[in-house]
Amino acid sequence: MAVVTLLSDDEMSAEARAVLDDIRAVRGSDFINNFWRALAHDPALLAATWARLKDVMAPGALDPLVKEMLYVAVSTANACSYCIHSHTAAARAKGMSEAQYGELLAVIGMAMQTNGLVTAMQVPVDEAFRS
Amino acid sequence: MAVVTLLSDDEMSAEARAVLDDIRAVRGSDFINNFWRALAHDPALLAATWARLKDVMAPGALDPLVKEMLYVAVSTANACSYCIHSHTAAARAKGMSEAQYGELLAVIGMAMQTNGLVTAMQVPVDEAFRS
Amino acid sequence: MAVVTLLSDDEMSAEARAVLDDIRAVRGSDFINNFWRALAHDPALLAATWARLKDVMAPGALDPLVKEMLYVAVSTANACSYCIHSHTAAARAKGMSEAQYGELLAVIGMAMQTNGLVTAMQVPVDEAFRS
Amino acid sequence: MAVVTLLSDDEMSAEARAVLDDIRAVRGSDFINNFWRALAHDPALLAATWARLKDVMAPGALDPLVKEMLYVAVSTANACSYCIHSHTAAARAKGMSEAQYGELLAVIGMAMQTNGLVTAMQVPVDEAFRS
Amino acid sequence: MAVVTLLSDDEMSAEARAVLDDIRAVRGSDFINNFWRALAHDPALLAATWARLKDVMAPGALDPLVKEMLYVAVSTANACSYCIHSHTAAARAKGMSEAQYGELLAVIGMAMQTNGLVTAMQVPVDEAFRS
Amino acid sequence: MAVVTLLSDDEMSAEARAVLDDIRAVRGSDFINNFWRALAHDPALLAATWARLKDVMAPGALDPLVKEMLYVAVSTANACSYCIHSHTAAARAKGMSEAQYGELLAVIGMAMQTNGLVTAMQVPVDEAFRS
Repeated sequence: MAVVTLLSDDEMSAEARAVLDDIRAVRGSDFINNFWRALAHDPALLAATWARLKDVMAPGALDPLVKEMLYVAVSTANACSYCIHSHTAAARAKGMSEAQYGELLAVIGMAMQTNGLVTAMQVPVDEAFRS
Repeated sequence: MAVVTLLSDDEMSAEARAVLDDIRAVRGSDFINNFWRALAHDPALLAATWARLKDVMAPGALDPLVKEMLYVAVSTANACSYCIHSHTAAARAKGMSEAQYGELLAVIGMAMQTNGLVTAMQVPVDEAFRS
Repeated sequence: MAVVTLLSDDEMSAEARAVLDDIRAVRGSDFINNFWRALAHDPALLAATWARLKDVMAPGALDPLVKEMLYVAVSTANACSYCIHSHTAAARAKGMSEAQYGELLAVIGMAMQTNGLVTAMQVPVDEAFRS
Repeated sequence: MAVVTLLSDDEMSAEARAVLDDIRAVRGSDFINNFWRALAHDPALLAATWARLKDVMAPGALDPLVKEMLYVAVSTANACSYCIHSHTAAARAKGMSEAQYGELLAVIGMAMQTNGLVTAMQVPVDEAFRS
Repeated sequence: MAVVTLLSDDEMSAEARAVLDDIRAVRGSDFINNFWRALAHDPALLAATWARLKDVMAPGALDPLVKEMLYVAVSTANACSYCIHSHTAAARAKGMSEAQYGELLAVIGMAMQTNGLVTAMQVPVDEAFRS
Repeated sequence: MAVVTLLSDDEMSAEARAVLDDIRAVRGSDFINNFWRALAHDPALLAATWARLKDVMAPGALDPLVKEMLYVAVSTANACSYCIHSHTAAARAKGMSEAQYGELLAVIGMAMQTNGLVTAMQVPVDEAFRS
């Protein structure tokens, strides 16, 4: 149902294939998910997106699992079905337990709910919350 | 700029005031932020919202700081200014470092970006991501 | 904070002023809210928007108060601060009680919450719900 | 396409099954839609969500049909496909006529349109609309 | 998966069929996409929507191709799958090159990203940007 | 009302200041808008965001003015007030006429409206629109 075709390794440019090779090397897996095969139509966009993603999602001050859960949270509020599937799978691959997943869902639901209440009432920001 | 007034303790019902007393007790602080004073017009809605929030945001399988960051992530995607202010303040109060905040921002920005790319291209979900 | 100026009656074209005259006549009030003064820079867009709004919000199979509450619900999910202010005021002017407003808030909050849960879990649509 | 499996009655915990029994009793129907079977992985979240939904959607100051239409409005702005299907079906089951449905659509479309216009122009809120 | 059926020419009212005849005439094609067959249940809504769309998307100060790309941009941020499919197809039919499509995607991704960063940090508007 | 402070040139790191110098050089102006002063708390995020923005918004297959209008369209659907202000100002600086602005608004409003109608009716994608 994509509006672009998914390119096989043979159908893409050498520049795009080099990005896929780096994805495989960094992830230690031969599997390439559809997002990258769709982006491969534009090798420069593919390269820039992967370079940034690799950097942002690497271990740092936040745990990679926390980063995947944050990704699921944003993607849910944006109703990005593909992103929810891929980052929920990534969170599970990084060890998300069923209890953690249940709490992730509960926080998302709670945040959506109070986002709605606060926005509907147009509550003014407390002075105490300003930097 | 609210579409409802903010009720002082004296202006609200006894039922609403009892909820505020519980908020103060649980948080160990006398400060009550505007959200609750706006909700106090409807004591039943106030009570249900607080009861659920108290439960969802308590320590569990996820760290309370992680929960606050998830809350900021959802609230950002929903453009809830008040919620972003209050939960960023809460995350800082729970120890969020500048480095953690920078990574939170970077993940939000990355997720928004790929949400847009994936949605614009309508990338089909990989079989590997389905439960 | 607008990115366009608000035009006074004297600053706008005759075509725009004629639309404002119709707004005043239909509403039985001299007051013109800022939205129309901002749109007046483009008299054709102003005229088309008002003509459609007048038609859509008129009494029909749904009560005008119900229509205003639906407007608040959509505007909240879209985080349109101005629209929430203006349509909450319109709902009150059309008789929305405090109890009705409380239930409107509760339904918005509930819908936001289950929107988040359903989307996060990517629940497949039941056969029973398909037309 | 869910990221969680849908649990049959036999696969879920006794606590979850008790919630489903209450759903059946309240609705006077044996049919359980997928949302609850997905939530059943987390019995506490299932119980809290159903308890709140039952309360919020019950007859009150607003008619249950109006509540279902509000639910559709929010779910549309949030692009929640499942929620749109289930609450449109619920609205029809509660007697929504074709004329009412047409007006619901028209109001949603109108609100989306003026949300866009107002937000793009960043129209400042009129003093008259502030509480 | 629609919540409404799609009406064939024979199943719709004469008023609705007249709108479809105009769509065919304006577009110089017999093909009618599903959106109009779904809207045909409400001939007045169908007529109003088509009349406005025909006017808005016609050549003017902006090129029709630019208008289609703007439509894709809005529809992506709103996660409207159908709209993304139909307006990407329309943009291609109006001559959008692969290079233009790649830049459209890149701008959408960039805008989503900085929308997230700006909103998360709640950056105040510069005086220089106010009208 | 930011949740971060805005750093003056003197308060930021040398790495951040070097990015601002490049912004000034590329834009041929001493003015630095608040977004960059907020991002300057995290020099790496600042540098990555600017490097990408500079590349994406440069002249290419799409005109820089068209890119600014696309940015406004996405930012409106995401309700990013700051982004709407800054990119509307940028579009005007790049020559957007009042007539073009009026059509930009009209397309945004139209897209929002049909996004709502299509999503509410859950119209299935036509075979003709699939790649």
